[in-house]
Amino acid sequence: MIVVIGGGPAGRLGAMHLAQAGEEVRLIEQRSIGGQCLHERCMTICALNDIARLIEYARTQKDLGILDSVPTVSYPAIQRRICEVQEKLSSVLDAETRQVGVEVIYGAVGRLEGDRVFVGDEEVRADAVLAATGSRPAIPDIPGTELLGVYTYQTLPTMSDLPRHMVVIGGGVVAAEFAHIFAAFGSDVKIVTRHALLGDLDPKMRSAALRDLTGVGVREQAAVAGIEGAGRVRSVMLADGEELEADAVLLATGLVPRSESLQGLRMGPDGAVVVDSRMRTSVPGVYAAGDVIGPPYLTPAARREGVVAAENILGRDTVMSYEGIPQAMSLRYDYAFAATGEGDGGITLSAPAPAGPGSFWDVAGGWAGLAQVRVDPGTGRLIGAAAAVPGASILLSYIGYLMKRGITVDDFDEIVEVHPSTDGVYGLARYAAGMFKKKNE
Amino acid sequence: MIVVIGGGPAGRLGAMHLAQAGEEVRLIEQRSIGGQCLHERCMTICALNDIARLIEYARTQKDLGILDSVPTVSYPAIQRRICEVQEKLSSVLDAETRQVGVEVIYGAVGRLEGDRVFVGDEEVRADAVLAATGSRPAIPDIPGTELLGVYTYQTLPTMSDLPRHMVVIGGGVVAAEFAHIFAAFGSDVKIVTRHALLGDLDPKMRSAALRDLTGVGVREQAAVAGIEGAGRVRSVMLADGEELEADAVLLATGLVPRSESLQGLRMGPDGAVVVDSRMRTSVPGVYAAGDVIGPPYLTPAARREGVVAAENILGRDTVMSYEGIPQAMSLRYDYAFAATGEGDGGITLSAPAPAGPGSFWDVAGGWAGLAQVRVDPGTGRLIGAAAAVPGASILLSYIGYLMKRGITVDDFDEIVEVHPSTDGVYGLARYAAGMFKKKNE
Repeated sequence: MIVVIGGGPAGRLGAMHLAQAGEEVRLIEQRSIGGQCLHERCMTICALNDIARLIEYARTQKDLGILDSVPTVSYPAIQRRICEVQEKLSSVLDAETRQVGVEVIYGAVGRLEGDRVFVGDEEVRADAVLAATGSRPAIPDIPGTELLGVYTYQTLPTMSDLPRHMVVIGGGVVAAEFAHIFAAFGSDVKIVTRHALLGDLDPKMRSAALRDLTGVGVREQAAVAGIEGAGRVRSVMLADGEELEADAVLLATGLVPRSESLQGLRMGPDGAVVVDSRMRTSVPGVYAAGDVIGPPYLTPAARREGVVAAENILGRDTVMSYEGIPQAMSLRYDYAFAATGEGDGGITLSAPAPAGPGSFWDVAGGWAGLAQVRVDPGTGRLIGAAAAVPGASILLSYIGYLMKRGITVDDFDEIVEVHPSTDGVYGLARYAAGMFKKKNE
Repeated sequence: MIVVIGGGPAGRLGAMHLAQAGEEVRLIEQRSIGGQCLHERCMTICALNDIARLIEYARTQKDLGILDSVPTVSYPAIQRRICEVQEKLSSVLDAETRQVGVEVIYGAVGRLEGDRVFVGDEEVRADAVLAATGSRPAIPDIPGTELLGVYTYQTLPTMSDLPRHMVVIGGGVVAAEFAHIFAAFGSDVKIVTRHALLGDLDPKMRSAALRDLTGVGVREQAAVAGIEGAGRVRSVMLADGEELEADAVLLATGLVPRSESLQGLRMGPDGAVVVDSRMRTSVPGVYAAGDVIGPPYLTPAARREGVVAAENILGRDTVMSYEGIPQAMSLRYDYAFAATGEGDGGITLSAPAPAGPGSFWDVAGGWAGLAQVRVDPGTGRLIGAAAAVPGASILLSYIGYLMKRGITVDDFDEIVEVHPSTDGVYGLARYAAGMFKKKNE
């Protein structure tokens, strides 16, 4: 029998892959299947963002005189309804997982002591183990994080109503996504970040993102001295003396692997279980996948790691590759990026994206998003692409794949769009093809 | 010099292609650049549908208690604002066209008498001609089409306010799209069609589409006896005696090529200019492209035909291919389809699409869309795909291309999604790969 600890994307996909290959698989899940992805992260942000976008679009159309009003959210109803939908999705995942033959055990804690496997207090025999215990939010070392009204994405579902003043601490994708959502809902939102907000982004994409965050107050290069309040949060005090009023604080300062229950495995300084490219840990027969092995902390990567672990457990030599994994962020538009990893070589082209579904009415304000391509001028190969448009996530999934397969800008000649489309990558690639052709003539 | 008649997608792209190759090009456009696509069809439907979707999503979220209200549209403002945005887009297209060296002449009528070219009354010398005069709506042969309040998509912008009762005559994509829009805006809408509504669709995709049209009254296999009214439309009388109240009637009964000004070219019975696969007409040196050569009446096809004509004018032998052109329809979700054209062979799989951006809250009602794949079981090649999800249009553009390139369901293993995604084609292809693998083991 194979024991899988954790029913998030890595564990669940690994378990299913093993069961489909005919193995006897027992999946141990403490809570509900689907992991943080379904219950607290990806899907929750999707749920909230679908509402936020509706409100923002309504605001645009109201400003144009097209709509008579902008709806107001009932935050308690949102939380209640999200849970209902998540339970529905979780039961779908549960059924899907069992259907291929995985035995799912809820409510138990799976843990390791080297190659010994325990479910609760009981030791179980296992031919192999896949540890996929996930991650948890990092809590920054500042005073006041224990106050009522201080949340992480994990405890946010316990927030009972919309805050008047929210401070988001952190400068990455998750900080930006939640700030955008609560600003759209009508909260006064401020982001405090030690470095630059979304500083890892390409400058043009970052400008586009900051545009989507116009309603959010941003404090960059800013240290938090402490979160203030008596029992409940009242404000966030910055090192430079500024005090930001807050009835809610969201800590969006990264993730840490959740590996305490995995004794005896070699770990990195942050507690990430060390694995090789076959997802093998330092203990023979024990594999790990997903957030517990550290970054990139992405569902598609976790799923794939789970499958790679399963393949190797099955004795099929399979190596994990992180090449061309698209990344995304959801603000007013989708922001999505992919690159072949061939470094900074190539020519980068940027252009406004075409108006299409979801962006038509933004043209009135002079903005329908942005597209970017990076092209190797020697070969014409597309080596990077990015888009800030409605639908960018789907677009970049396929562009990411085509880049791995070596697509050149000339090949885009064969692609036939649906019109209208917000796909600016297509237009830019066609433009680049013409540019190179001209130069070579 | 090369004369291009008509500044829609076919003429404009053809003209630009010629100018980029160094030719002297004169583009004759009667009205404004961009053609019906920008002014009356694709982009207008996109504009209206963006509003319709917002209202429908608001209704869903209001029903869930998440939003307090559903906005109401001001129809006169919509029409005014659409024109403003279209003018903006038209001026972008104008600049883009001139920038590559095309001379654009507005307000003149270009016409042909065999190989003689006239701009207005003046004959001009041309080394070659590209005729891209487009199409117009077909007017069915029934009494009352001349009444006030009877529109086609072309005259619809003159409708001054939202009708209380609208009857749409026609059973195709355009009929469905407009019926969906006006029903969302709050009009009582009925569709009358001689055959089945959207009868060309796959039965499952059709069921999904009819779901999006739940608020629309549908009369299938129904003949219109006449449109009634004194000066203004009052009702539509059906052959079976039923009378449908109407203060507006939309005729969505297809298109006819607009070829009256092209004398001396061989034409089909419907007035479509006959061309070969190089876009050559019966008159040497005269090429035609776009709606004027007849179906499929799609912008991406028209653009490509324009470019193929240009290539052949330039003496570069190029043939038009209609293989794998994706088609789409916009209702509550995008509906998009593509196929390699390898007939009805293969195994078809269908499944509910995953919840993702734009569809999360529909899960509460038990519906997040539909995906379909058709796979050749011998080779594992994907030979058809369809999706009814938010973002399906972008998805099917790339799936269409990958199918042309011979993608197999096993290849989907290399595609890394962004999560969450509404891309159900991906999941089905992965599922099919597993299914075939199992069978072969």
